[in-house]
Amino acid sequence: MKIILVGASGTIGKQIHEALSPRHEIITASLNKGQVKVDITKPQSIQAMFTTVGSFDALISATGSGPFGAISALTDEDFNDGIRSKLMGQINLVLTGQKYIRDGGSFTLTSGILSEEPIAGGTVLSVVNGGLNSFAMAASAELQRGLRLNVVSPGIVEDSADAIGQYFPGHNPVSMQRVVNAYIKSLEGIENGRVIQVY
Amino acid sequence: MKIILVGASGTIGKQIHEALSPRHEIITASLNKGQVKVDITKPQSIQAMFTTVGSFDALISATGSGPFGAISALTDEDFNDGIRSKLMGQINLVLTGQKYIRDGGSFTLTSGILSEEPIAGGTVLSVVNGGLNSFAMAASAELQRGLRLNVVSPGIVEDSADAIGQYFPGHNPVSMQRVVNAYIKSLEGIENGRVIQVY
Repeated sequence: MKIILVGASGTIGKQIHEALSPRHEIITASLNKGQVKVDITKPQSIQAMFTTVGSFDALISATGSGPFGAISALTDEDFNDGIRSKLMGQINLVLTGQKYIRDGGSFTLTSGILSEEPIAGGTVLSVVNGGLNSFAMAASAELQRGLRLNVVSPGIVEDSADAIGQYFPGHNPVSMQRVVNAYIKSLEGIENGRVIQVY
Repeated sequence: MKIILVGASGTIGKQIHEALSPRHEIITASLNKGQVKVDITKPQSIQAMFTTVGSFDALISATGSGPFGAISALTDEDFNDGIRSKLMGQINLVLTGQKYIRDGGSFTLTSGILSEEPIAGGTVLSVVNGGLNSFAMAASAELQRGLRLNVVSPGIVEDSADAIGQYFPGHNPVSMQRVVNAYIKSLEGIENGRVIQVY
């Protein structure tokens, strides 16, 4: 398959690339690195990426961010930053990508455990992840031409535990192998409209 | 209690008002009617409402909208319209309202069944409702001074079934009494961080 991997240079994206590249053609896409540059906060940049790449069989997105802050300090702008990046960035990959993807293709996006479990300062990402999970459920039911759409919702990954594990007290870090397998399940399996939890 | 009721002139808001006004002081707030005018899509309008009302004991929001459309036709702007209104409008009521509400007060927002069940053309509201449910879960855990936050998630209400029931095939309309009771449960009960489903 010809697969666009958005966020290919990230912690999870690198491992997805390593797992899939022996048997698929991967087009790496990132903000600053990769074969194609894309800023997912800008719909015109997403449009340019698809125009450049042309038709493809699958898109995997492992990207998007949102600011941290206590609810007492968060602002409308903080939420908008997360919404423009991780939520609408990934939704726009599907809205535009559905016009370029081949029949029977698949989209796999990334949400995360904060949709269901709170951590101090994590409300923006909770909102973003909750929206993404419902997006996959709803949009998947309307996609045409046999297209599929799932979202992988990872807990904190072992590879990130040293850096940010202190912000996830009591969370059980999950192995990168399990996380990568969730993307493979969405890509090569038959699931549609699923939130594939890895925690 | 002194309660700000945002969306007081809506289908559900009117019934909440009727149920609560015998035993509480209700400040009605709406875009065009009500004792206080508020446009929840504008943070400065929300700020002006709280400055006008001053301290209060509870806020109930039964407002916010989002456009309908098939996933093949929806645009970034369509999603932004729903996000600015029903999602960020209600989130901003909490972000700003937490500075004016009295100790032990409560916020009750409104999401809806589309977070969990898809209907044709309903993806924007699915995303918005999913985000709101996760917001209540996360933000409630950080609120200070004994403040509480819940979200009521109604199915299609009997009162709306004639007008829009055709878009909800197979859904079981719920009684307005059950929907109003969910707001009463959030307001006068002890729940916090709950998605109170009425379907």
